Amino acid sequence: METETKDDATTDWLNADEQRAWRLHLDVSRLLMYQMERDLQPFGLTNNDYEILVNLSEAEDRRLRMSDLAKSTLQSKSRLSHQITRMEAVGLVRRENCESDRRGLYAVLTEQGWDVMREVAPRHVASVRAHFIDLISPEDLAAYHRALEPVAAHLRAGRSR
Amino acid sequence: METETKDDATTDWLNADEQRAWRLHLDVSRLLMYQMERDLQPFGLTNNDYEILVNLSEAEDRRLRMSDLAKSTLQSKSRLSHQITRMEAVGLVRRENCESDRRGLYAVLTEQGWDVMREVAPRHVASVRAHFIDLISPEDLAAYHRALEPVAAHLRAGRSR
Repeated sequence: METETKDDATTDWLNADEQRAWRLHLDVSRLLMYQMERDLQPFGLTNNDYEILVNLSEAEDRRLRMSDLAKSTLQSKSRLSHQITRMEAVGLVRRENCESDRRGLYAVLTEQGWDVMREVAPRHVASVRAHFIDLISPEDLAAYHRALEPVAAHLRAGRSR
Repeated sequence: METETKDDATTDWLNADEQRAWRLHLDVSRLLMYQMERDLQPFGLTNNDYEILVNLSEAEDRRLRMSDLAKSTLQSKSRLSHQITRMEAVGLVRRENCESDRRGLYAVLTEQGWDVMREVAPRHVASVRAHFIDLISPEDLAAYHRALEPVAAHLRAGRSR
């Protein structure tokens, strides 16, 4: 723990615009997460479940090495492992060892998981549109992307260090 | 649970730009949350703790009715109650009943909580700057705000329904 204390004279506090933008980021992030999760509830899925299903359904042979899945979903391996255990219990995915590949424990989308994805994906897209994309003009969406791209690059670099 | 299934012909899938913007939103939200929490760890605080401290320190007499605090931190009352119990145990806040106000269980910032805020706030602002605000030009930050404002308004309205 650091003990040095900065005082007001040296702190570069946020101005009103910066403060508003930061609060807006926090509110939208959380509200959107809640709303998406609420829309997934009728299908018995959480946001995390859905993200894993998307990643697996887009992967070759609908399977990914656990370590790669952890990386692309930004989760720790132990947290992902718990998550996969829960999803395995309800039949959405299964674990597989690859004998020819010593690096290899895989998560594989089951047929049931694929059927669930096909049912849920159109509704999820409708939800993303209704609560986010369709509320933003294409110009503002482009500006949004331009604003956040360097933030994402910075944070990803910090994470891999 | 809805059982009607939309098929590909009727689904308005995201185009490439929309898809990129949505993924970027998901990544930045999560990465930023992790980074902020990592920066608060040396002080023994979580993002949720910090948000509650901010709300109380900005309130009159550094106290808020529990129901108002739940509303402004977008938490359920029961989740907030657990959170306040943990924060009370480490001396940051205390609960108080207001005898003249029948609506009233309050959360109050303690002197210790106030001292912690004074120490942490400058570092937290530096962290918000380093990982978000200072990476975005003022023009893009304005566009970011313009893009998200209707999203926030829409989601807040949906929540209060």
